[in-house]
Amino acid sequence: MISRSRLCAAIVAFAFLTSALSSPTAYAQPNPLHTATRQELDVIKVLVAQENAWNAGDLDGFAKGYKDAPDTLFITRTVSRGYASLLESYKHDYPTRAAMGTLAFSELEVRPLDENYAVVLGKYKLSRSKKEGGDADGVFTLVMEKTDKGWKIVVDHTT
Amino acid sequence: MISRSRLCAAIVAFAFLTSALSSPTAYAQPNPLHTATRQELDVIKVLVAQENAWNAGDLDGFAKGYKDAPDTLFITRTVSRGYASLLESYKHDYPTRAAMGTLAFSELEVRPLDENYAVVLGKYKLSRSKKEGGDADGVFTLVMEKTDKGWKIVVDHTT
Repeated sequence: MISRSRLCAAIVAFAFLTSALSSPTAYAQPNPLHTATRQELDVIKVLVAQENAWNAGDLDGFAKGYKDAPDTLFITRTVSRGYASLLESYKHDYPTRAAMGTLAFSELEVRPLDENYAVVLGKYKLSRSKKEGGDADGVFTLVMEKTDKGWKIVVDHTT
Repeated sequence: MISRSRLCAAIVAFAFLTSALSSPTAYAQPNPLHTATRQELDVIKVLVAQENAWNAGDLDGFAKGYKDAPDTLFITRTVSRGYASLLESYKHDYPTRAAMGTLAFSELEVRPLDENYAVVLGKYKLSRSKKEGGDADGVFTLVMEKTDKGWKIVVDHTT
């Protein structure tokens, strides 16, 4: 559950990020005065909810950002196929609250394809004690689908 | 230009790959008797043409697989934004025919989103002399769009 203040913070963060991304030294966006659409905000809300769930130690809640379907793809060094396998893979890699650490998404950029699909480009950072594997960070691209249960990730390629 | 025989070979290869992908030890496909659709074949043809162009030393031809647009994304360790920047990045990384080596795509899997968009999951292998940087391989996900110039890659995440 995202509180109103948390969502407002996310929208402000998103506006800031969109603005930051427009810097020619970082990412050259075609439109620096871009205003987030309803679709972009709906998509971002899913990622904010994922971040919140992760940082509350709730892997099942985190996984709700993915479509519960056999063809949902999660690509890292390997290819994980299907929601059940994805959840199992997360639970295997992050067995304890300490192993999960603290997750932060940044530089989120939503690229709508059409009214039912969007691509999200972003970065993640996992802050974690050395004993638990240490910090990790990387880039991801997501394909998200507007389902009858809201926007869901159908393909996640994380590196 | 793909010759008819080359295209037939690609279709046979695709059928084989689809079949190979259905092996539970590799990728568990929901439908082992899946027949390639028109859309899937059209998408695969673009990748076959890219492979041919690359192996003919034709980087401009290879780049024609991407949409010539300022928001085309190419994500590797860095994010390259726009067709011009993408082409420049390829020419920088592969300045000579020898540096390009021989490219082979494999395990291509097309996942249609709707009639205008599809995701492609696949692997690449670059065979190259040690002097030129040696062999390289990895996984990619592509988002492809049906444009008035045919199917084009709009997002490429290669690792």
